[in-house]
Amino acid sequence: MHIDVNPARPALDPGFVAALRQRFGDALEMGAAALAQHGASEAHFAPMAPDAVVYARSTEEVVDLVRLCTAAGVPIVPYGAGTSIEGNALAVRGGVSVNLSQMTEIVAVHAEDFDCTVQAGVRREELNLHLRDQGLFFPIDPGANATIGGMASTRASGTNAVRYGTMREAVLSLTVVTPDGKAIKTATRARKSAAGYDLTRLFVGSEGTLGIITEVTLRLHPIPETISSAVCGFDSLQGAVDTVVQSIQCGVPLARVEILDDKQMAAVNAWSRLDYPEVTTLFFEFHGSPMGVEEQVTLVRDLAEANGGGAFQWSNLPEERAKLWKARHEAYYAAVNVRPGAVGWTTDVCVPISRLPECILETKRDLEAGTVPATILGHVGDGNFHVIFSMDPNSAEELREVEAINARLVQRALLMEGTCTGEHGIGLGKQDWLVAELGDAVDVMRTLKRALDPQDLFNPGKIFSL
Amino acid sequence: MHIDVNPARPALDPGFVAALRQRFGDALEMGAAALAQHGASEAHFAPMAPDAVVYARSTEEVVDLVRLCTAAGVPIVPYGAGTSIEGNALAVRGGVSVNLSQMTEIVAVHAEDFDCTVQAGVRREELNLHLRDQGLFFPIDPGANATIGGMASTRASGTNAVRYGTMREAVLSLTVVTPDGKAIKTATRARKSAAGYDLTRLFVGSEGTLGIITEVTLRLHPIPETISSAVCGFDSLQGAVDTVVQSIQCGVPLARVEILDDKQMAAVNAWSRLDYPEVTTLFFEFHGSPMGVEEQVTLVRDLAEANGGGAFQWSNLPEERAKLWKARHEAYYAAVNVRPGAVGWTTDVCVPISRLPECILETKRDLEAGTVPATILGHVGDGNFHVIFSMDPNSAEELREVEAINARLVQRALLMEGTCTGEHGIGLGKQDWLVAELGDAVDVMRTLKRALDPQDLFNPGKIFSL
Repeated sequence: MHIDVNPARPALDPGFVAALRQRFGDALEMGAAALAQHGASEAHFAPMAPDAVVYARSTEEVVDLVRLCTAAGVPIVPYGAGTSIEGNALAVRGGVSVNLSQMTEIVAVHAEDFDCTVQAGVRREELNLHLRDQGLFFPIDPGANATIGGMASTRASGTNAVRYGTMREAVLSLTVVTPDGKAIKTATRARKSAAGYDLTRLFVGSEGTLGIITEVTLRLHPIPETISSAVCGFDSLQGAVDTVVQSIQCGVPLARVEILDDKQMAAVNAWSRLDYPEVTTLFFEFHGSPMGVEEQVTLVRDLAEANGGGAFQWSNLPEERAKLWKARHEAYYAAVNVRPGAVGWTTDVCVPISRLPECILETKRDLEAGTVPATILGHVGDGNFHVIFSMDPNSAEELREVEAINARLVQRALLMEGTCTGEHGIGLGKQDWLVAELGDAVDVMRTLKRALDPQDLFNPGKIFSL
Repeated sequence: MHIDVNPARPALDPGFVAALRQRFGDALEMGAAALAQHGASEAHFAPMAPDAVVYARSTEEVVDLVRLCTAAGVPIVPYGAGTSIEGNALAVRGGVSVNLSQMTEIVAVHAEDFDCTVQAGVRREELNLHLRDQGLFFPIDPGANATIGGMASTRASGTNAVRYGTMREAVLSLTVVTPDGKAIKTATRARKSAAGYDLTRLFVGSEGTLGIITEVTLRLHPIPETISSAVCGFDSLQGAVDTVVQSIQCGVPLARVEILDDKQMAAVNAWSRLDYPEVTTLFFEFHGSPMGVEEQVTLVRDLAEANGGGAFQWSNLPEERAKLWKARHEAYYAAVNVRPGAVGWTTDVCVPISRLPECILETKRDLEAGTVPATILGHVGDGNFHVIFSMDPNSAEELREVEAINARLVQRALLMEGTCTGEHGIGLGKQDWLVAELGDAVDVMRTLKRALDPQDLFNPGKIFSL
């Protein structure tokens, strides 16, 4: 794959910079620290800094910025919390990073309709704090405290997707600033509609390459009457995965079911100062009425027992649950930091649930034959799992090993009719695999991109090269 | 609105017809009966016949047909069961209707993954018959025994959408023949993916204007352990709607909840030879475990009673349920045929659930002030309802009245942040309303259409005029 990374490029035109300064004042930053921050990512990619950063505070400001950038032919790269892990927000060709993290207004909550509208920079934890008193919650949980706009842009999902879906299902409508400098609304607040093309779903997951999301209308859910969380260790990886597959096939509406392999549990124990047994472990969460949760738990516990699972360790108090899920959310950092000075290199795939045991077991064997420390964890109820490598940033050999393991993993998933990324997105890292997965369909995507962004200025170089 | 309906156009080029004949033999039909059938619809639109009909039997045949049509500049209009009601399959500019109803292969059922792949011409009732022995079902139910391809093209939903979603959620992947004559696959069988633009959702609901769907991979669901259906009459329309809204707001996972107003109940009784009380009535269906259904029923019955509902009349045996839902499914024909020789004119809107009582009550008042017989029925759990007029096809005055009532209905829905069509699609009938609803976003749709279908040959004149 050829990525046109930060080629030698001329400095921004002084007239353009002056126009930015006039419109945005101090919200324009061109200092080294700001550029470096926006040119870094949480993963292994080389830094790719923008030439300027603009902190936008409204849709109107984004419209003005887009008009200035498109008139000057300058790339524009949306930036939220910076927590994506396929280099999705890196400024491959420089230009302006538009930082939306100050757009934190919760515009409206319609509790009786189970929806809300927020600016793109609202973070999911803050949204849930705001909603709690109304008995509502927003379930999508990718781990990181990402912005809602970033989550929409990358079609994020995470631990609750098995029950509540992904951002594909959670987003009812978007406000998007398109490359022609207009702010459009993609849909109304109606739960369903047959009115024209589904622009909402087109922009969800488009990683900022077709427009910049400035507001999001989200589906919400009532906080369940009963929430129970439990942890269960297993004799074998196979037994743990089989328990999940069988639970799903029995129609149990699991709210969360996460797998952490033995290596990941050791990392979690060390990082979060816990003392779980260091064996393959499932983290469960059950939502429902008291009777409904009881029914689910009985069935799943029987399945776990039949598959070599140990006793369920329950966390029913909110603070116990918070501790449990905090450990799960820190799993990425835990896995990366199993050795000092390492950098994280992570990948994810998603396969049909019936192929999951085979896919995970083959991957585990491949990891065990390698030399780079690696863990497996994942949202196994969806057939989705991650591998996290803790890689020496200075070792070309380790990089080659990791890339080879990743290649085998993705090929394995594709042969099983799965996808090269369940939730991380294509970004910079999975572009060749997108073509391997979808073939000529990628040409259709390119046609759409060229039609909406003929100058190729919106997050250029992501998903595919034109 | 200007629709370029069947303008005087030259006959098909004889060389083009010869090429069709050579490729398709007897599967090419140009007789008057076939042209008339494909130029008619179930609704009030004037007939708009194609110049030829081709019965396709495979994706490869559709590819060849598309290549012949695009080379000759001839419009191509997909046709399934002909049950759509916004004129979605009419040949506005003639050309070739490609009839997919003979593509009836069930390509694969992956019971353990809860999915299946079918050719576009499979009808939903036949699919469910096929699935029944495996304990699975495909829930989307628009009433008519439509083809799966047609349902995907129009983003169909119907009675079960409140619980199981619409075709937007049900479709995992599509095979689509695009205007450049390629067959693409839009996604894998993975439950979720972050791999590039969501082409699946772009083609779902695009009404054949961007490509022709030839195969569909669908999510399936386990047949619930317990299914209970009930009918409940109400003192008032307000009471019935309030019962639904409150049930949804309490988080009851209703599988179906349909409203039929007094006029619709009278029509159903007459058409289906039943003797329900002729008052506003809710048809319910509950799915779940025995305990789960019991919990739902208890709550909903209490709400109904508090809102002036009568006794629940239960249908728990499969044949009783079939009779009940058959009556519901025939409601459209029942409503149209309240007077002999009438033609159906139907519309639908969808609003946020909190606005539904107001929207339905105002609409009812408007209908009662009119002279054309009309009924209200709908999938009220989604905020979606229909009005069906039984219109004298020869009365310009009745047409004016109906159009005026429809205009007020759609404006009412848009003011309530709803949509001009919950499930019928835009087709020919709602084009101005699409613009009223989404404004500049429609320009983005046009840009996509021009990019993918630069000759404007794929179901031209639908959704919008270019």
